Amino acid sequence: MASPVTFHEATLPNGLKVIAEVNPEAKSAAAGYFVRTGSRDEVVGEEGVSHFLEHMVFKGSQRRTAADVNREFDEMGAKYNAFTSEEMTVFYGAVLPEFLPRLLDLLTDIMQPAIRPEDFESERKVILEEIALYRDRPDAVLFERAQRRYFGSHPLAKPVLGSPESISKMTPELMRAYHERRYLSGNMVLAFAGNLVWEEALLLAEALTSGWRRGEAPRSYPPFKPRAGLERDPFDKASQLYAAYVSPGIAARREERYAARVLAEILGDADNGRLFWRLVDNGLAESALAFHHEFDELGVFYVYVQGDPANEDEIADAVAAELQKLQRYGVTDEELARAKLKAATSLVFAGETSLSRLFYVGSSYSYTGRYEPLDAVRRWVLHLETEHLKNLLEDDPFDKTLEYRLLPAG
Amino acid sequence: MASPVTFHEATLPNGLKVIAEVNPEAKSAAAGYFVRTGSRDEVVGEEGVSHFLEHMVFKGSQRRTAADVNREFDEMGAKYNAFTSEEMTVFYGAVLPEFLPRLLDLLTDIMQPAIRPEDFESERKVILEEIALYRDRPDAVLFERAQRRYFGSHPLAKPVLGSPESISKMTPELMRAYHERRYLSGNMVLAFAGNLVWEEALLLAEALTSGWRRGEAPRSYPPFKPRAGLERDPFDKASQLYAAYVSPGIAARREERYAARVLAEILGDADNGRLFWRLVDNGLAESALAFHHEFDELGVFYVYVQGDPANEDEIADAVAAELQKLQRYGVTDEELARAKLKAATSLVFAGETSLSRLFYVGSSYSYTGRYEPLDAVRRWVLHLETEHLKNLLEDDPFDKTLEYRLLPAG
Repeated sequence: MASPVTFHEATLPNGLKVIAEVNPEAKSAAAGYFVRTGSRDEVVGEEGVSHFLEHMVFKGSQRRTAADVNREFDEMGAKYNAFTSEEMTVFYGAVLPEFLPRLLDLLTDIMQPAIRPEDFESERKVILEEIALYRDRPDAVLFERAQRRYFGSHPLAKPVLGSPESISKMTPELMRAYHERRYLSGNMVLAFAGNLVWEEALLLAEALTSGWRRGEAPRSYPPFKPRAGLERDPFDKASQLYAAYVSPGIAARREERYAARVLAEILGDADNGRLFWRLVDNGLAESALAFHHEFDELGVFYVYVQGDPANEDEIADAVAAELQKLQRYGVTDEELARAKLKAATSLVFAGETSLSRLFYVGSSYSYTGRYEPLDAVRRWVLHLETEHLKNLLEDDPFDKTLEYRLLPAG
Repeated sequence: MASPVTFHEATLPNGLKVIAEVNPEAKSAAAGYFVRTGSRDEVVGEEGVSHFLEHMVFKGSQRRTAADVNREFDEMGAKYNAFTSEEMTVFYGAVLPEFLPRLLDLLTDIMQPAIRPEDFESERKVILEEIALYRDRPDAVLFERAQRRYFGSHPLAKPVLGSPESISKMTPELMRAYHERRYLSGNMVLAFAGNLVWEEALLLAEALTSGWRRGEAPRSYPPFKPRAGLERDPFDKASQLYAAYVSPGIAARREERYAARVLAEILGDADNGRLFWRLVDNGLAESALAFHHEFDELGVFYVYVQGDPANEDEIADAVAAELQKLQRYGVTDEELARAKLKAATSLVFAGETSLSRLFYVGSSYSYTGRYEPLDAVRRWVLHLETEHLKNLLEDDPFDKTLEYRLLPAG
């Protein structure tokens, strides 16, 4: 059965890239703005503004109050939300196909938020509560601190939420200045996925964004040298040992990222990875897993272990042994076959809804500037060989690992 | 475009009902056993056995160890899991179509679990930790206690997880006896959804279950009179006021349940319901929502409010006023139009994946004995009129409300 899926792309006169993966058999349609901005693009005094601004976008524009935004999404029966990472702020929705024009109108309008002082103050409290909540969670604190130490003076060290201090000092003026600098047409991708007519969506997008500021918002890529070694701290909310390992991986722009994900899966699938069998199955730790995370110009392998502090040394030895074994001998054909199938199957599951296709297409296009069709990626994953994974290990990434541990205080 | 979806049903010689919603355009296939058993079917001493048994099912059969089960699901790249409610225990997986026979073999085999004493002991600890975790959460404690008080001596009063006492005393023998009594072919539905060939699935199901015990497992339906009134307790983990309102609703077997869901949506959509605008938008409470939950022979409307204990009386007055207003005047055409669209759209989103179709088809068939096609349900929802919702309110359900509140201790 030939796939009815087609891809389209265009650049509007204002510089906005518009893309669509059209599937006439889909039951829904999704749209999203992928803004190439996040905590790494914040300057001193702006820490956390990307995420705070993401919240303010839903508080209304010149034409709409917060209640209007709320009500209009609801009237369409839309699924909608947004998220902010170190590098990206994404606003999205999914609706029945007939509501796509209305969804696009609403999403486009709120991309120019009013940032009203009274909404700003009430949302500031929400953000401060969100930070307080995270600071109660040892796993969240572990990752925030491990990332900060690993990246040092590199902008990826900055936490997405900011700090209580930076959020307390934030002003609507500062947020508006950030918005003017970063939310420029040339720094965004408008993506569509699902059941829609490309020409109609494109015309409407052009009409709705015709008044937008032109321009690009460059990102700085300072040199980075991974920090290695072991650091450990007491943490008063921890009743367990929490350990994170951060090692160099593959950038989001590079095709080898699929090999890196498969490698992380073999090492640290939560229920069936090497670390599971070495640490969890025999009771040495409560959980042990690995994953690969891609940033713009670099990537990282993360290992996460949680267990009894009494086993600290034994856990550390076991993880070190597994990392060294993997680095030296790579993976077996059997492991690779299983992990490839699993990765390819996940792609199929993620291709079942318009919304998950939107995330995939929008994000990969934002990073690579290319469209990667589901079937091509799937074939690519299924053709991975042990040699591809071995290539990732040539530079001994696990000798450049930062190990960070949180332990119960006192 | 005509829908390519077809429905099939059969009863095997051993009494097992097998159903399938086949969609040749789907990219995946899902299978699940819907066992008509849960906490309401437990007798004294068995409290929590349904949920504990759900865990033990994944610990292996006569042919497979826990590690085998784990590994085999993983080798297929399956998405899989299980859940237990008051009335149902469901085991399910989704895979690429070519793996469906293997998935069915695995799921079918583990439905006859070995319940090995050493696995039993380690899983007992997991369950006890799960209970401890829930008992730290005020919202979970609120609902458990509200449900217990509302249902009184009716079996729906029993918490799904059981109690630390009942789990501590549980034995493999007692669990085996429960399994023999409840996991009978006549008390289950085997459901399929997605891309599969019905005849092949049915033949395989018959072969794999040919040795199963025949028989049915009746459920008792004692008379029930809703308990009304107000009760409140201090709770040492609460720093806020948590309030639950439980009122009579519509049973899972009845078509009116869609009207009841729409009514609950109008009253208590989390971001745009009447309660939101009356309590949350103006800062009187932090969240206020309503939903409808269907059980076998009866249903309930739930209202949930969380807020500042200093506002306790004002919150109670506002909720009471909204419930009375709804009961007396029903809903407006505009509210209904919005809520219908939203419900119909949710159905479409839930129809996008094989797994979500499996849940829908398996669950509704288990309760009603009928297949309800997505398009028919959608049309049915879109044809709801204010009069249908008014009919639900004729017996003054909100005059039969149990109000239960948790407040900070001391």
